[in-house]
Amino acid sequence: MFARYDKSMTKRILLLAAALPSLASAEPADTTAALRDAALGDEVAWDITEGLTTEIGQRLAGTAEEARARAWAVARLRALGFADPRIETFAMPVWVRGAETAEIVAPFPQRLVLAALGGSGATPPTGLTAELVRFDSLAALEAAPDAAVRGKIVYVTHAMTPTQDGSQYGVYGDVRRKAPAIASRKGAAAILIRSIGTDHHRNPHTGATNWGTGATPSPNGGGATPIPAAALALPDAEQLDRIVGRGRPVTMKLVLTPHLTPNGQSGNVIAEVPGRDPRLPIVVVGCHLDSWDLGTGAIDDAAGCGIVTAAAKRILDSPSRPLRTIRVVWFGAEEPGLLGGIAYRQRHGDEPHGVVAESDFGADRVWRLRTNFVASAAPVGEALARALLPLGIAYDREGKASGGSDLSVMGAAGSPSVDLDQDGIRYFDLHHTPDDTLDKIDPAQLRQNVAAWTATLSIVANAAAALGPVPAGTSE
Amino acid sequence: MFARYDKSMTKRILLLAAALPSLASAEPADTTAALRDAALGDEVAWDITEGLTTEIGQRLAGTAEEARARAWAVARLRALGFADPRIETFAMPVWVRGAETAEIVAPFPQRLVLAALGGSGATPPTGLTAELVRFDSLAALEAAPDAAVRGKIVYVTHAMTPTQDGSQYGVYGDVRRKAPAIASRKGAAAILIRSIGTDHHRNPHTGATNWGTGATPSPNGGGATPIPAAALALPDAEQLDRIVGRGRPVTMKLVLTPHLTPNGQSGNVIAEVPGRDPRLPIVVVGCHLDSWDLGTGAIDDAAGCGIVTAAAKRILDSPSRPLRTIRVVWFGAEEPGLLGGIAYRQRHGDEPHGVVAESDFGADRVWRLRTNFVASAAPVGEALARALLPLGIAYDREGKASGGSDLSVMGAAGSPSVDLDQDGIRYFDLHHTPDDTLDKIDPAQLRQNVAAWTATLSIVANAAAALGPVPAGTSE
Repeated sequence: MFARYDKSMTKRILLLAAALPSLASAEPADTTAALRDAALGDEVAWDITEGLTTEIGQRLAGTAEEARARAWAVARLRALGFADPRIETFAMPVWVRGAETAEIVAPFPQRLVLAALGGSGATPPTGLTAELVRFDSLAALEAAPDAAVRGKIVYVTHAMTPTQDGSQYGVYGDVRRKAPAIASRKGAAAILIRSIGTDHHRNPHTGATNWGTGATPSPNGGGATPIPAAALALPDAEQLDRIVGRGRPVTMKLVLTPHLTPNGQSGNVIAEVPGRDPRLPIVVVGCHLDSWDLGTGAIDDAAGCGIVTAAAKRILDSPSRPLRTIRVVWFGAEEPGLLGGIAYRQRHGDEPHGVVAESDFGADRVWRLRTNFVASAAPVGEALARALLPLGIAYDREGKASGGSDLSVMGAAGSPSVDLDQDGIRYFDLHHTPDDTLDKIDPAQLRQNVAAWTATLSIVANAAAALGPVPAGTSE
Repeated sequence: MFARYDKSMTKRILLLAAALPSLASAEPADTTAALRDAALGDEVAWDITEGLTTEIGQRLAGTAEEARARAWAVARLRALGFADPRIETFAMPVWVRGAETAEIVAPFPQRLVLAALGGSGATPPTGLTAELVRFDSLAALEAAPDAAVRGKIVYVTHAMTPTQDGSQYGVYGDVRRKAPAIASRKGAAAILIRSIGTDHHRNPHTGATNWGTGATPSPNGGGATPIPAAALALPDAEQLDRIVGRGRPVTMKLVLTPHLTPNGQSGNVIAEVPGRDPRLPIVVVGCHLDSWDLGTGAIDDAAGCGIVTAAAKRILDSPSRPLRTIRVVWFGAEEPGLLGGIAYRQRHGDEPHGVVAESDFGADRVWRLRTNFVASAAPVGEALARALLPLGIAYDREGKASGGSDLSVMGAAGSPSVDLDQDGIRYFDLHHTPDDTLDKIDPAQLRQNVAAWTATLSIVANAAAALGPVPAGTSE
């Protein structure tokens, strides 16, 4: 689908959409308000979040645990009454963590706490000992001559702080995503980074790094050889900063023994709320089922599955069927690089998607609405704004929705989207750490999310008007 | 000393003390106030806390790291100008952590995070698999018939919550201190407890348990066979509660491979600020140098050593020498059971101790003063109250000082004592966890502690009057 999409087609659809009568929403505002307010008493989102994290726990992409989670998801979606719950599998290489220890050999012998990054190479089983070289930013590493790095353990720090919109993840996240490949190309023996996080606990933040070789799940090109790559817990990074700051050479010993299995399998779990008019482009709401292996994936992203599924369930149970079909997708293998989203696009990219939206930023309250609707669909955006305002959600009319993580793949393919942005102030305290566990979920904020998604689905699944250009193969 | 102390002796000394003129403090209040206020700009406490945690890190009792910490302490005390810094060693059995993993085998396979308790027995290297039996209190375990426990992995939870005075540690701490021996006597294969803590991070709380056999460092009697004993991180304990709550039998596999070396060595580090009258009973201020092995022992108890040493240093540097000698003791091996305090009493119990006081409850602000002075020394207590009030510290005249952890051994032997109670609200979030690291120290609150201790030393080390019964062998 992505390959077949071109701009002239968009333009044609835009002109067509603008010519249609403006039908903001077929669902009366008071119906939406009633559904929204009832959702503030929701229990389904909690039950899903609690069940998945308790009965499955961690669900690393491509593992037996993720497969058990898919079976769990199908059973739950069926029990909730969704239509046609099913699994769509896809192949992937599977990276699994091994032993991981880090030791300062000199000048001040002690252990530090760290976690291998997804895709990390391995040290010899007996470890790797080398001198450390510290860089205070990604740019400083990039600027370093190869001779300053060759054969050494590179350590890169950064200055990430909490932000409500999580925008620092874009900036400082590159230390995790890019620095390992850069260090590898310069001949480093291994790389450590300050965890991409904002807490002060001995819980390191893992996450995928991108060698661009195809040896890891990352999709984009480049071709660096994987080297051992790990993130220090933030107190340990600060400890290392102090030790380096004493001005004496620092020698470290690392043991990291992850391994990569080329032929693994993941899958997306899909189910629907059938709409009254199957010819209309569908509404797709997503979350991801896989998690990193350190925690139980409560905020990332069991809660997201709980939220969108609970909201869709409320539409399923409402007196009138929605105009458009609502598809719920619990994506597999988001963490290694949106593999579930890519597999979904390969399989479903030809189907008309009227709007895509994903919940994948924790379980704290929604504070902002963003859309990317065409001008003719502005009344739908305004209907959303009115329905969400009582929940404390502001409509950022200048903002632009992306569709979320997995569904950004569809958004990039041109699908209209809605973002219900969650408060990110504490998200990167927990993200990708052992601390991503159920006790971090605030049930009241979780319910506010369900209410916001319920109101949003009530409006967009009943909107007759096109919300934007619907990629080729659609009926609008 | 403890053995030679009897009540009739106390009574005689009390009568003697009451007959003396009431000399509250030889140090004018404005001198004390000036010292106190200058201490609010202290850097010494931070430097000690930062240095010990950075250059040594964890300092488990009886290990090479604790020995390095003693050498570090002597060098630092010498550099600060204290008189006669020295090490007094003592023998002890040394318990060292090994591998530790916990896995739910059925019904919901997943790993849990835990840490062996100090003194834990070991599983076979390949682990131990058994059915779990849960108790919701120590009392419930005590009441259980042996048949309910035999051959099983016992799990005991509790209801600890944060308290400013840390008093719940006394109540719920018994789950760690006593439940393992009880479970062992009932024939349990192993025991897990909910960490004795108040946080929600994947950082388990270790700490000594008491078999009473002499096989571990714990001094009191009893004679249970050590079994594998570990504390689950609080989110993991809650996860286990949920899993047990599903009503299906729970099977777990534990691997815990700690080992015990009978002939180890620890030591106390001692130095003085010489007083003008060496015949007067001395003032002893303490802290402990050892730490648990999971964190770097910042709040427990590098900060305590920083605080009392910084305060003593301010008296050392003040224009007039104090009336009484101030002795600073950085105790070794507090954590396995006050071994440093006991060794100190064996060696120094015969010397007259005019007052003992210890800082071993973190680095948050002092909020309460308690003493155990005789009535004739009430003016000294009131002088302390006046000097500490501007720091936000209230004098609890009904309270009774204990002398702190190691020095409680001297307090129990009859020495007068002063407690400067620190705010404990977040202490048990960090206590005995990997999270006890430097970043948890608030420099402003640390300085408030130094100011409180400086004012206290200024008053008590210049008080000519006896503050209470001074045990036998004293000159008062």
